[in-house]
Amino acid sequence: MSDLELHDTIRAVVYRDGVLRLLDQRGLPNGEQFLDCTSLQQVASAIRDLVVRGAPAIGIAAAWAVVLEAKRLAAAGERVDASTLRTPIDHLVDARPTAVNLSWALRRMRTVLADSPSDPLQVLTAEAQAIQDEDLAANRAMGEIGAGLLGYGVGVLTHCNTGSLATAGFGTALGVIRAGYASGRIARVYAGETRPWLQGARLTMWELMRDRIPAQLIVDSAAAYLMASGAIQWVIVGADRVAANGDVANKIGTYQLAIGARHHGVKFMVVAPSSTVDMAMADGGQIEIELRKPDELLEFAGRRTVVDGARAWNPVFDVTPANLVDVLVTERGAIHRPDITGMREMFANPDRECA
Amino acid sequence: MSDLELHDTIRAVVYRDGVLRLLDQRGLPNGEQFLDCTSLQQVASAIRDLVVRGAPAIGIAAAWAVVLEAKRLAAAGERVDASTLRTPIDHLVDARPTAVNLSWALRRMRTVLADSPSDPLQVLTAEAQAIQDEDLAANRAMGEIGAGLLGYGVGVLTHCNTGSLATAGFGTALGVIRAGYASGRIARVYAGETRPWLQGARLTMWELMRDRIPAQLIVDSAAAYLMASGAIQWVIVGADRVAANGDVANKIGTYQLAIGARHHGVKFMVVAPSSTVDMAMADGGQIEIELRKPDELLEFAGRRTVVDGARAWNPVFDVTPANLVDVLVTERGAIHRPDITGMREMFANPDRECA
Repeated sequence: MSDLELHDTIRAVVYRDGVLRLLDQRGLPNGEQFLDCTSLQQVASAIRDLVVRGAPAIGIAAAWAVVLEAKRLAAAGERVDASTLRTPIDHLVDARPTAVNLSWALRRMRTVLADSPSDPLQVLTAEAQAIQDEDLAANRAMGEIGAGLLGYGVGVLTHCNTGSLATAGFGTALGVIRAGYASGRIARVYAGETRPWLQGARLTMWELMRDRIPAQLIVDSAAAYLMASGAIQWVIVGADRVAANGDVANKIGTYQLAIGARHHGVKFMVVAPSSTVDMAMADGGQIEIELRKPDELLEFAGRRTVVDGARAWNPVFDVTPANLVDVLVTERGAIHRPDITGMREMFANPDRECA
Repeated sequence: MSDLELHDTIRAVVYRDGVLRLLDQRGLPNGEQFLDCTSLQQVASAIRDLVVRGAPAIGIAAAWAVVLEAKRLAAAGERVDASTLRTPIDHLVDARPTAVNLSWALRRMRTVLADSPSDPLQVLTAEAQAIQDEDLAANRAMGEIGAGLLGYGVGVLTHCNTGSLATAGFGTALGVIRAGYASGRIARVYAGETRPWLQGARLTMWELMRDRIPAQLIVDSAAAYLMASGAIQWVIVGADRVAANGDVANKIGTYQLAIGARHHGVKFMVVAPSSTVDMAMADGGQIEIELRKPDELLEFAGRRTVVDGARAWNPVFDVTPANLVDVLVTERGAIHRPDITGMREMFANPDRECA
């Protein structure tokens, strides 16, 4: 086992023989329970209920959901084609609005169907597998590219969970941290809790401990004080959608980290596969930001923590303007200080990986 | 009842006939339980265990603790003087290190004892009552001064709890919000959750709802996104210690808010009575920052939320440099862009209120 394999043991989305097995992220770290999905509806609910989360993992799960629906149609003796799958696919697209990977993956599934293949089930299965395999390969490539930018002996802070739990495996920002730790470039890892859902506390810390990467948890609001202490040189985060000008939608709190990083001269790296880049969206102002239920702030584990009648504002993503991003890492390479020009050079053909 | 009285109904620290009654802030908002303390040891534990919290409230509770100890000595037929009270007072000072009000209040109690009064118990009781009464008066004065700076129809964000629960009553930053809301200057109030102890979620929201001031809760990391949305024009916070150059130690996350506020052109107001000002401390770099147990991040309501073996870094205060403070409001007046000169002008005689 190589050093890197030692730090990469988790797979959260696994398809086999008509069953999509999802590691239920709501139960972590208190036990590893799996949800076996055999229908598109089950997968849509799993996406909506955060059984599976993370932009790339959502896209992969949705692709397999289309395969499950195609299997159901075939078993029922119905046609499997663009027309019978249109409504089920539209239903999936609505599950989470901010992440672009969901609609990107479903567009790929629609595209292969549009050619009216003789064996649509086989073609859809191959495409879902390709989406998954390409994601893992992209993550490994980004890990190498991103880690190469870090220097040696640095401290890093990450936010939310961008690891094997959020992708086909290895992770985006957490993939760079895996690669950077394995190569001795990263000496200290900090993870923000990521309220309200505590992805950092519950998922990233679980993933890092399990894959033998020592890390310390902080409350999200301690990030600036951590930066002032000199303990970190990089903030490394993922993205749910990157606009054509380099603006980045990501987990709520990312924008605050970017402002703090710039204030302290800490570098800010966004790691996202090209499937996350949305060249059709001119800038971040157009990205729909998902507002979730106030209850996520008003309760904890079913226990009420805030006085009855209280209101809450619960946007779960925010937009970081490109001018606060020092480097955007995709599997195609790194863009320093991204802007429309640099983005166009790298993503002139946004679907070239999809061929 | 005036408009302002309508918004000021809570008292959390009440002394009467040998009993210090504390509203137990650990149980809020799920029920109002009171802890009746009849000994200095009980009060010291209550301070350490966060039954009572907030820099001014801690100072007031500690002053009453000295009265309780003096009563115990007198009842046991022992002398009540500077010598018999030295060790008990030292014990209290150690309960929480960051807030200066604790040692400030105890210094006042020591000072009145040092004159060897003929009736030390009466003198100590009068001094504790004075500390409490002056705090309430200071808060009302700061409310008026601070609210006068706001403009009309503004939105404000506050952090932690700086209200009646944290003081003799009315509050510091929350006093400005009370006064600003009652006078129609404040149109929108937002409160940050304030991880890890959730003072904002549990206490500030309870206090505001109870005193009929509509507010919305946000996760701490949504503050910058809220600022970018244009919803707020002011961040208003309290302080646990203000250094001679205007640097401010306050609840973890305050520094991050100050950076975000400056980035967005949102004004940043610190509201603190002169008892919080420590002219003996040249700058914030010398302020001892309390590190609390990692368990505060690793558990919630006794339930483990983070994988076993995980580490956490849990500083519960941070230091905001004076250059990020737009205005410091004390009961003596407002200092715009505080620095050593402005601070010296206002606090040349730091104890002049104590005469």
